[in-house]
Amino acid sequence: VICRSAMATLSRHDTLKGRRIMVTAGPTREPLDPVRFLSNHSSGKQGYAIAEALSARGAEVVLVSGPVSLPLPAGVTRVLVETAEQMLHACEAQLPVDAGVFTAAVSDWRAKALSGQKIKKNGAPPSLELAENPDILAQISRHAQRPSLVVGFAAETETVLEHATAKRLRKGCDWLVANDVSKNVFGADNNAVTLITAQGTEEWPLMRKNAVADRLADRVAQFFTLS
Amino acid sequence: VICRSAMATLSRHDTLKGRRIMVTAGPTREPLDPVRFLSNHSSGKQGYAIAEALSARGAEVVLVSGPVSLPLPAGVTRVLVETAEQMLHACEAQLPVDAGVFTAAVSDWRAKALSGQKIKKNGAPPSLELAENPDILAQISRHAQRPSLVVGFAAETETVLEHATAKRLRKGCDWLVANDVSKNVFGADNNAVTLITAQGTEEWPLMRKNAVADRLADRVAQFFTLS
Repeated sequence: VICRSAMATLSRHDTLKGRRIMVTAGPTREPLDPVRFLSNHSSGKQGYAIAEALSARGAEVVLVSGPVSLPLPAGVTRVLVETAEQMLHACEAQLPVDAGVFTAAVSDWRAKALSGQKIKKNGAPPSLELAENPDILAQISRHAQRPSLVVGFAAETETVLEHATAKRLRKGCDWLVANDVSKNVFGADNNAVTLITAQGTEEWPLMRKNAVADRLADRVAQFFTLS
Repeated sequence: VICRSAMATLSRHDTLKGRRIMVTAGPTREPLDPVRFLSNHSSGKQGYAIAEALSARGAEVVLVSGPVSLPLPAGVTRVLVETAEQMLHACEAQLPVDAGVFTAAVSDWRAKALSGQKIKKNGAPPSLELAENPDILAQISRHAQRPSLVVGFAAETETVLEHATAKRLRKGCDWLVANDVSKNVFGADNNAVTLITAQGTEEWPLMRKNAVADRLADRVAQFFTLS
């Protein structure tokens, strides 16, 4: 509580000055052929809001983004990607960074075989063989150039806290921000999240995505002030 | 040629007055679970431009649209849908209409089993069992309340003319507009199409999508003038 009020008295413009932070956002798209793809409902809003909040606090922010329909926040550098593999390579290319915030909804799977031509609709519907995508959060968390602070996001639809707590340990990240996407958050402006750290869990009340971003950015600034 | 110049002298505002026309546009999204879906790269631009061109000629236009990021053209009524099944039902609900222009890139397949919870990434990647979606163009072409003019669109990546000519007969539509999507038309503002009718094929030069829309709308008006 003392820390939070101390932070509030600092100018927000400077709390992350000199820090280089990578943020991922949006969905990935995994092509099946030149026309079709597998994707998910991530709007990118939460990640873009976090990039903006970090940048507003003076951080040098690189946003590695899947396909979304959002304006680029002022002062933020963006790298656009489509697939999980492209996103991983773009993230690795940004290392070293002081912190990484991985909000992107990376497709867990891609098509095992990518067809160069549009798959024709002949006879029985195909069965789509999937291959596992790289786990960007886990790979960056275990990278030789691991950022000092790695923050993951987890979209869950059931037993959110249990899944997310296990996920933090499995991925090797420092903080995990869990949200319950069964509550219709995709594309919405509000979000209700739980922050899971080694110290325990904090349930944040339902608030606007940019308020979640502000609060998280303040926590990131606090981390660097205290470390 | 005489017809075309005669048409040009008519006021475009009136050439489709009193006609009710349905247009479909955009991709469909087929959910695998509450988070993931199968979709395609259709931007909806060509369909929205056609809806606008038909409306500008006095038609009453209903646009049945999948998820896109496009403004609704003035004077056009829109019904938003996600899946192929929803699109079929929305189209059937609009019958009778004088003409139907089916530009939507309807997913050929959906997941055989829709998971109510986010599918967990445990062990081996799943194999995705697909089921065939309803064929909206074919169903409307054979409907008891079939529109007088049914226009289909076909996105092809190889032997475009051959595939599209066969498709016109198989679907039972009057006209088929074929485009070669191997040439990077998704999201672009230009399109190169071939119009296939019972009378033969016409290759239209590369032009802006709203020029394709104007030319097609003029042809639709001509159809009703001559019929």
